[in-house]
Amino acid sequence: MESLLAGDSLLAFAFEFMATATTGVLPGRVLAAIGELAKSIGTEGLVAGQVVDLHYTGNNQNVGLDTLEFIHIHKTAVLLEASVVMGVILGGGDTDQVKRLRIFARKIGLLFQVVDDILDVTKSSEELGKTAGKDMAVDKTTYPKLLGLDKAKEFAVKLKDEAKEQLASFDRDKVAPLAALADYIAYREN
Amino acid sequence: MESLLAGDSLLAFAFEFMATATTGVLPGRVLAAIGELAKSIGTEGLVAGQVVDLHYTGNNQNVGLDTLEFIHIHKTAVLLEASVVMGVILGGGDTDQVKRLRIFARKIGLLFQVVDDILDVTKSSEELGKTAGKDMAVDKTTYPKLLGLDKAKEFAVKLKDEAKEQLASFDRDKVAPLAALADYIAYREN
Repeated sequence: MESLLAGDSLLAFAFEFMATATTGVLPGRVLAAIGELAKSIGTEGLVAGQVVDLHYTGNNQNVGLDTLEFIHIHKTAVLLEASVVMGVILGGGDTDQVKRLRIFARKIGLLFQVVDDILDVTKSSEELGKTAGKDMAVDKTTYPKLLGLDKAKEFAVKLKDEAKEQLASFDRDKVAPLAALADYIAYREN
Repeated sequence: MESLLAGDSLLAFAFEFMATATTGVLPGRVLAAIGELAKSIGTEGLVAGQVVDLHYTGNNQNVGLDTLEFIHIHKTAVLLEASVVMGVILGGGDTDQVKRLRIFARKIGLLFQVVDDILDVTKSSEELGKTAGKDMAVDKTTYPKLLGLDKAKEFAVKLKDEAKEQLASFDRDKVAPLAALADYIAYREN
């Protein structure tokens, strides 16, 4: 009960902080950013991913690629998406820029999970800094399991390339941190 | 787990709806209203009341008037306060008007609980439409228990009068619904 209350108060505080402590930004942009964060949490975001994940827990044989992607998009990628999109909204980006960076973030969010699955198979526990091989031990559905390791690696490269394509129309210096983030996620070794 | 997720998604949706569906109001006012709602939920509001209530559950002998008031203010009155204050903020009220209506709402919120406690003692289950006498049955700390029934009734009248005093400086027609709400809460019989 106490952890539930802590969660509720932190969730509310995120919105309180954004609404009351943001300075130097037009109020309409702050509202749009609040709407973006809220959407990433609820029935179109995190909660949707968690519900589907719970539904399939202990029932792995039925999880196909579409379901796996739905879960990862909603449990992981939407929060990366919200973080990136809130930045472009608060910074005054136009509709087209918001759209491109939304695609970028969603792809690197999914990439994060694909790489996570690959590292669990290819690295030792020592290299990872956490227990390796635990996905297979609990018979978890992963990209290497569904696609094979080579195809999973190809999929990771494809996601990274498609993400970085979305950055092409921006000022190169401005999006350098985002390009570096995509590379970091793609090439991380633990 | 599912009810927790439902709660989180509804909580997030309240902010999403306010941020994205409010029309005809200056964005800065919507932000102030969002900040108000968020504050009423977290560690200065609902969650604070719930935590203190949980702390004293099964430990009633230690609950004095101050604690009882803290719990009722935070579990009940803050939500009435947020509802009223969001209205005056969105309607363009000035700082003084917000302050007066905040006091008004807090007092009728507490009044609601005092009247609830009184009705539990004075009415039959049939009249209430719910089980009467159940506070005493579970040895719950109430205003009649702490003050005696007559003093509890006096306290209710005092809260109602003090609440309505806060409405005196407003246009009488405009605050008529709020005055009626105070009377309704004070004189309700179930």
